[in-house]
Amino acid sequence: VRDAVTWAEDGPDRVTDLFVTDAVAAREPDLVDRARDAGIRVALVTEKAAAGLSDTVTPQGVAAVCRLVTTDLADALGTAPTLVAVLVEVADPGNAGTVIRTGDAAGVDAVVLAGDAVDPHNGKCVRASMGSLFHVPVAQVRDVDQVLAALRSAGLALVAADGYAPTTIDDADEALRRPTAWLFGSEAHGLAPGLPADHRLRVPIHGRAESLNLATAAAVCLYASARAQRR
Amino acid sequence: VRDAVTWAEDGPDRVTDLFVTDAVAAREPDLVDRARDAGIRVALVTEKAAAGLSDTVTPQGVAAVCRLVTTDLADALGTAPTLVAVLVEVADPGNAGTVIRTGDAAGVDAVVLAGDAVDPHNGKCVRASMGSLFHVPVAQVRDVDQVLAALRSAGLALVAADGYAPTTIDDADEALRRPTAWLFGSEAHGLAPGLPADHRLRVPIHGRAESLNLATAAAVCLYASARAQRR
Repeated sequence: VRDAVTWAEDGPDRVTDLFVTDAVAAREPDLVDRARDAGIRVALVTEKAAAGLSDTVTPQGVAAVCRLVTTDLADALGTAPTLVAVLVEVADPGNAGTVIRTGDAAGVDAVVLAGDAVDPHNGKCVRASMGSLFHVPVAQVRDVDQVLAALRSAGLALVAADGYAPTTIDDADEALRRPTAWLFGSEAHGLAPGLPADHRLRVPIHGRAESLNLATAAAVCLYASARAQRR
Repeated sequence: VRDAVTWAEDGPDRVTDLFVTDAVAAREPDLVDRARDAGIRVALVTEKAAAGLSDTVTPQGVAAVCRLVTTDLADALGTAPTLVAVLVEVADPGNAGTVIRTGDAAGVDAVVLAGDAVDPHNGKCVRASMGSLFHVPVAQVRDVDQVLAALRSAGLALVAADGYAPTTIDDADEALRRPTAWLFGSEAHGLAPGLPADHRLRVPIHGRAESLNLATAAAVCLYASARAQRR
């Protein structure tokens, strides 16, 4: 919610309402003041009402009503993106939210949800993103081909994370130095084999694990790019 | 369960019972045969009984009764370990299980749960490990100082993952090439500031995220070591 208020300070009509319990208002007077200054209606609510507004087992006593955060793909990519994370047909909200958080940390210009993917406004996704949903431009586009064309037009090489690729990320510094859009598939199905990409790379498995969790693999890949691009 | 049966094939009395529904027995005849060959008692159970044996919402119709997998710290470390993941006071079972899975993938020699940490036999931890709990030696020791002394005796440098460290993992290839025990604290509290370590390193945050999920940070750190040690 704090990141939502900061987001509201940077543009009009982004957050309309803030609901806080007495306890939260007493503990976080600065948050309430900033919200009021940003033109957000603030209402004090009972613990019970706050619980009703939340879908978690242990509600935090604070909720905000926000405009959707997703933007046009062209706006999300901007003029000269260098690192973009693309989730293709990723349905799990926790994984999607964690990739948004990790992408933010790794310095991506945007996160794109392509195809039949989870809605980034899903509560679990919002919470897993830990505020990064309000930091990083996020676009959602159903047509995967349209996404790939836009990424290419923006000057990005398409790099598919593919557990069966012969080359590992450790042997691809040259490729990773270029502006890159990483394509990640769902944990259950991976990327469609026919998906066109300029490179296919895998995270090396040195032990006996069969695979990595999607959000984990994305973290290792995005940080490999961040490292290669900064050398 | 498949990894548990493989584990049972490698040593006596590791798995005593396998419970499967008719549907699973029909779909996985090989699993049932291998279990019987390994001396595991196999019982066909109803869907309802299988659901009663499971603590998930969508039970898979298969359960095994296993001996505890944890080993002595000395056994877990072996004679010349090169990479070990240590979770200090980590209470979240999903995070612990994911680190065991990721550690397995990154090629760690062992995972150590130190201090007041989650029991790795917790159901959520077992499931998040995706079988890696049966691949990687896991030790659990309450006394943190004892763990640190044993790691040092085994020739490992202690490297603390510390979000406030001045040096990032990208500038520490030299240090990371040495045999390393990575120390990770809980997501809520991090490592105790007084915890002795040979190096303190952070994962760089290039964007506006405040931090990384514990399992994500561990993945990036362990893979940085795996990469540095293999160059």
